[in-house]
Amino acid sequence: MAKENIPYKIYLEESEMPTSWYNLRADMKNKPAPLLNPGTGEPMKAEELAGVFCEELVKQELDNETAYFPIPKEILDFYKMYRPSPLVRAYFLEKKLGTPAHIYYKFEGNNTSGSHKLNSAIAQAYYAKKQGLKGVTTETGAGQWGTALSMACSYFDLDCKVYMVKVSYEQKPFRREVMRTYGASVTPSPSMETNIGRAINAEFPGTTGSLGCAISEAVEKAVTSDGYRYVLGSVLNQVLLHQSVIGLETKTALDKYGIDADIIIGCAGGGSNLGGLIAPFMREKIKGEKDYRIIAVEPASCPSFTRGSYRYDFCDTGKVCPLAKMYTLGSGFIPSANHAGGLRYHGMSSVLSQLYDDGLMEAVSVKQTEVFKAAELFARVEGILPAPESSHAIRVAIDEALKCKERGEEKNIVFGLTGTGYFDLVAYQKFNDGVMNDYIPTDEEIAASLAKLPNIK
Amino acid sequence: MAKENIPYKIYLEESEMPTSWYNLRADMKNKPAPLLNPGTGEPMKAEELAGVFCEELVKQELDNETAYFPIPKEILDFYKMYRPSPLVRAYFLEKKLGTPAHIYYKFEGNNTSGSHKLNSAIAQAYYAKKQGLKGVTTETGAGQWGTALSMACSYFDLDCKVYMVKVSYEQKPFRREVMRTYGASVTPSPSMETNIGRAINAEFPGTTGSLGCAISEAVEKAVTSDGYRYVLGSVLNQVLLHQSVIGLETKTALDKYGIDADIIIGCAGGGSNLGGLIAPFMREKIKGEKDYRIIAVEPASCPSFTRGSYRYDFCDTGKVCPLAKMYTLGSGFIPSANHAGGLRYHGMSSVLSQLYDDGLMEAVSVKQTEVFKAAELFARVEGILPAPESSHAIRVAIDEALKCKERGEEKNIVFGLTGTGYFDLVAYQKFNDGVMNDYIPTDEEIAASLAKLPNIK
Repeated sequence: MAKENIPYKIYLEESEMPTSWYNLRADMKNKPAPLLNPGTGEPMKAEELAGVFCEELVKQELDNETAYFPIPKEILDFYKMYRPSPLVRAYFLEKKLGTPAHIYYKFEGNNTSGSHKLNSAIAQAYYAKKQGLKGVTTETGAGQWGTALSMACSYFDLDCKVYMVKVSYEQKPFRREVMRTYGASVTPSPSMETNIGRAINAEFPGTTGSLGCAISEAVEKAVTSDGYRYVLGSVLNQVLLHQSVIGLETKTALDKYGIDADIIIGCAGGGSNLGGLIAPFMREKIKGEKDYRIIAVEPASCPSFTRGSYRYDFCDTGKVCPLAKMYTLGSGFIPSANHAGGLRYHGMSSVLSQLYDDGLMEAVSVKQTEVFKAAELFARVEGILPAPESSHAIRVAIDEALKCKERGEEKNIVFGLTGTGYFDLVAYQKFNDGVMNDYIPTDEEIAASLAKLPNIK
Repeated sequence: MAKENIPYKIYLEESEMPTSWYNLRADMKNKPAPLLNPGTGEPMKAEELAGVFCEELVKQELDNETAYFPIPKEILDFYKMYRPSPLVRAYFLEKKLGTPAHIYYKFEGNNTSGSHKLNSAIAQAYYAKKQGLKGVTTETGAGQWGTALSMACSYFDLDCKVYMVKVSYEQKPFRREVMRTYGASVTPSPSMETNIGRAINAEFPGTTGSLGCAISEAVEKAVTSDGYRYVLGSVLNQVLLHQSVIGLETKTALDKYGIDADIIIGCAGGGSNLGGLIAPFMREKIKGEKDYRIIAVEPASCPSFTRGSYRYDFCDTGKVCPLAKMYTLGSGFIPSANHAGGLRYHGMSSVLSQLYDDGLMEAVSVKQTEVFKAAELFARVEGILPAPESSHAIRVAIDEALKCKERGEEKNIVFGLTGTGYFDLVAYQKFNDGVMNDYIPTDEEIAASLAKLPNIK
């Protein structure tokens, strides 16, 4: 039973902040499947990955045994700039819904990158600096990850080269300006700086680019430049490890006030936020200590958990990265152009995929107009304009709270509010103008995409 | 002497939040000059103001005696949505500057409106609702105030009509979308909805509008619509009263850790943030209990304190509002189109004008490229992309910290960080592209503008 007088916002003291990341893989009974070398079909070795990723990050990526990784002091210091993030009791939303449920959300948007991505960006930049690298490369679509990485690289005085999908570069100049303000070089992709960029520009003159192409350029740039490595903002085990700081803080805050979560909800694109949020709760669930309902929420237009297949696939559409076993729609799958709500990744983190396959979590898909209705309601009563991605979790939190109302149940619902929507107002405009629609891929489209995958067990 | 171990962010407990606003006028030896009726030259009476403003707000506007106004419970509840705001110890900035000074900033940007404006918007919306009004009207330039008011009106289910300067409406669609998401109607000004709008459109076909015209339309709409009043986000006594919550929280946080401020710095446009921040400190200064240095920072392109004249002027360029005695550049003064840094108002709050005239505070003006240099530095080390307005205070805080470094002085510098710059990226882009310049009005321009003012002592 929760104590009385829970404040609107629970802020931990600095002394209560986690000092280690938690590696859920150490406690998983069925470990996530390893990355495979697409040439040999064999598990990727550390030395193979070290050409692309920083050494320490490779260790974190491959380590399924160590439960806790101490957070280096430099990263802890940086975390203090914007963490601990608040765990907010959604009193206003509860009142609006008239629900007996208690709703809490962990808000990760109070930093300039506007999302949880910074938690891993600063870790990846730190290890790159520690290794003596000159800089890192990455790709970005809408720009959330690129912004976070720019901030992190600026802090460690590290060069940051971002390949931004050309259509976003041109249509979302504001994200680009934030990155430039943090000293990053932002290149529209496909560019004329890389072999693959030049080849694509030659083959498709006037192309506006794709995430797959931007990844390929970023990887090529990293492996062909002295003192550079490639970094990635989601999907990978290392990223989920860093993001465990979200879940650890959430659990400490709940424990401090004697609150027992019943349902934990997170949006899921590549899985970085959800994996981080649920980590310490899933630990208790695996150990049989608690029985949380854990719900992944994905867009109906990109439903990798609910309509995808659990198998090996490329991590990128350009097929330059290793193969990962995951719930996937096929690396060639591209959500409808009408989809404005983020979470466009074709696959899902191997860790989460294994947990889902083991029946330890649920997944639901939601339509984007329903997501934006929830976003608008939330913005109006809770005073935060949520990112479209985060609003997937809001939608299901509201739905669950309304079920509690029907049944008269006073459950504790906890969800992850990953970020703000200040740079997503084109999507809000579509919603406000009533021109947003709900395209959902057909079974045939998904089957055709999956048919192109390599046949690896 | 400050206690050890000051955290990066000082968050007050909810129980430590102020429960009254503080009215500095009650303790001023020389009271601010009254608003005058432009027709009669006599002080505006409550009944004259009541046609334009809400009744309770008129009382607050005219009351120079009551020191504390209890904050109604409904507003206190709303404040808990985004307050208390953090007082941040700028450890990273101090380290970057290598200064022995301790720098603190009160950060008001952690709400969706992105600034301190919400503190007064919610109060004004509350009193409008309490009076049984249907709605309120206002004008907005860049959109910060309009956004705050939209949020506040949405909370109290009050209609909100915003006249947005046409050029901003067209060039800053994202602010507009936030307002629409909160249910406000946003009309580009000049519109065809009002007499003055139609007249201006007829006289200047294709005009892109001005703040003066938008004010005139908002006032006309309020006084000609049943159940509507006009509300304003700065300059007025009532607004400074509501904004005192900033200073009260700041002082409580400093006192809690035994920190004695030496220098208090705020940016000054109409004066709402500065007036709120300094209120409880100025009280001690007036009473001779403490001797703070208090510094107003204004743009060199709109220097009302440092180069204006202290006299009666219209509050608006359209000359439909009462006359106020203030430091002013003349109500016809318009800053250079190159000025991207906000704080464009031609005059200054009567309260602050009187305090400045009494020698109780200093004022400095800064050039905008220097402001953006400070903004960029701050963003990189403190992880917050500041609003251009707020960055005026950052500039002078840095300058003072560097003086402390030269002199080896361990002073406590406190400044107000009023908001975030997410909707100001066009200005950042100009800076990043190196095309921002520093136009400063000539003495002749200012003299010519002042020559047009009514001659009232």
